[in-house]
Amino acid sequence: MMHQISSSPFNNAVEKLASLPGIGNKTALRLVLQLLNRNQQEIEEFGNAFIGLSDQIQYCNSCYNISDTSTCSVCSNSSRSDDVICVVENILDVIAIERTNQFSGKFHVLGGIISPMEGIGPGDIKIHELVERINKNQPKEIIMALSTTMEGDATNFYIYKKLAHLDIEVTTIARGVGIGDEIEYTDELTLGRSLLNRIPFKNTLSLK
Amino acid sequence: MMHQISSSPFNNAVEKLASLPGIGNKTALRLVLQLLNRNQQEIEEFGNAFIGLSDQIQYCNSCYNISDTSTCSVCSNSSRSDDVICVVENILDVIAIERTNQFSGKFHVLGGIISPMEGIGPGDIKIHELVERINKNQPKEIIMALSTTMEGDATNFYIYKKLAHLDIEVTTIARGVGIGDEIEYTDELTLGRSLLNRIPFKNTLSLK
Repeated sequence: MMHQISSSPFNNAVEKLASLPGIGNKTALRLVLQLLNRNQQEIEEFGNAFIGLSDQIQYCNSCYNISDTSTCSVCSNSSRSDDVICVVENILDVIAIERTNQFSGKFHVLGGIISPMEGIGPGDIKIHELVERINKNQPKEIIMALSTTMEGDATNFYIYKKLAHLDIEVTTIARGVGIGDEIEYTDELTLGRSLLNRIPFKNTLSLK
Repeated sequence: MMHQISSSPFNNAVEKLASLPGIGNKTALRLVLQLLNRNQQEIEEFGNAFIGLSDQIQYCNSCYNISDTSTCSVCSNSSRSDDVICVVENILDVIAIERTNQFSGKFHVLGGIISPMEGIGPGDIKIHELVERINKNQPKEIIMALSTTMEGDATNFYIYKKLAHLDIEVTTIARGVGIGDEIEYTDELTLGRSLLNRIPFKNTLSLK
């Protein structure tokens, strides 16, 4: 489709944008054209933002969240409890959980989940670091908050086994019918789980 | 939403991606996370592709298509006629028309359309250059292929007026019911236009 444009810097920029997931060739073309409407300084700032990524990004030494400092803002927040660690796949999950305002512990960002299909083994994500951290800090509870995919389940189970010999409570976030969802449109697995894991109604009365 | 990530290079990259039309904050976040999975060299190549845009992009001296050379591949193609110039808004339109394989003339890329709302006047796009080019090369026909928006119509009319005193045929691409479209779902303006501009049926028999 792009054979009519004989500009290698242009095609190169289009190709790079199209290499991102969910951005097709045509969208990339539009985006690069839009960039070309900006002045030279703005375009250079755009490019430099990504070059900066490669050498300036740091991760928190404790939870592996992305951070400017060796300890991220969550880990260095003394009003948050060290007793509970919530294990998540990536920082999008950190953001999602923080938005709920329902969690005041610390996180542990695995940076992926075990996926034999994609060649990601336990050694490729921060499981070893999690176990070390637990041994060192002795938290009371680990909340597993991974996706309910086959990979998520495998990662949950792997970590659960790794922690089995420790005196620590391992929990997992509740699965059930979403707030605002209708029963009749809920898939049977989710609905089944929400029945099995039903809770006393009075427990819901104090929730906001 | 992004207050939990305290990394300025990360946030900067997200912000830059989110500045592109159609890319929201959450998508930008995902894309930057995906970029972070690449190695340093790949990330730098990504950034450099855009820095290259700002100083390496050239435009064809004749038609203002994007090009590596001072004359683009369409303009330097001697098997294409100089007698017909198709006027388009941007290179996406060049690509779309080239894909039809129905046009063997040259293009003229305006680089925008007249839009008082966005502060784009006739002097901001390549109309003056079009008139100069016509005066110099004396083509026989100008095909206007701009969008049927108010801005497109205004630009069409402005150019038509500019060329009125010249001995040149100004045509515009046909508007009508799309191939494969159903009559009953076609809007009345388009359907009305396709009735007004009906053509002898036998003329369609030779079309592929």
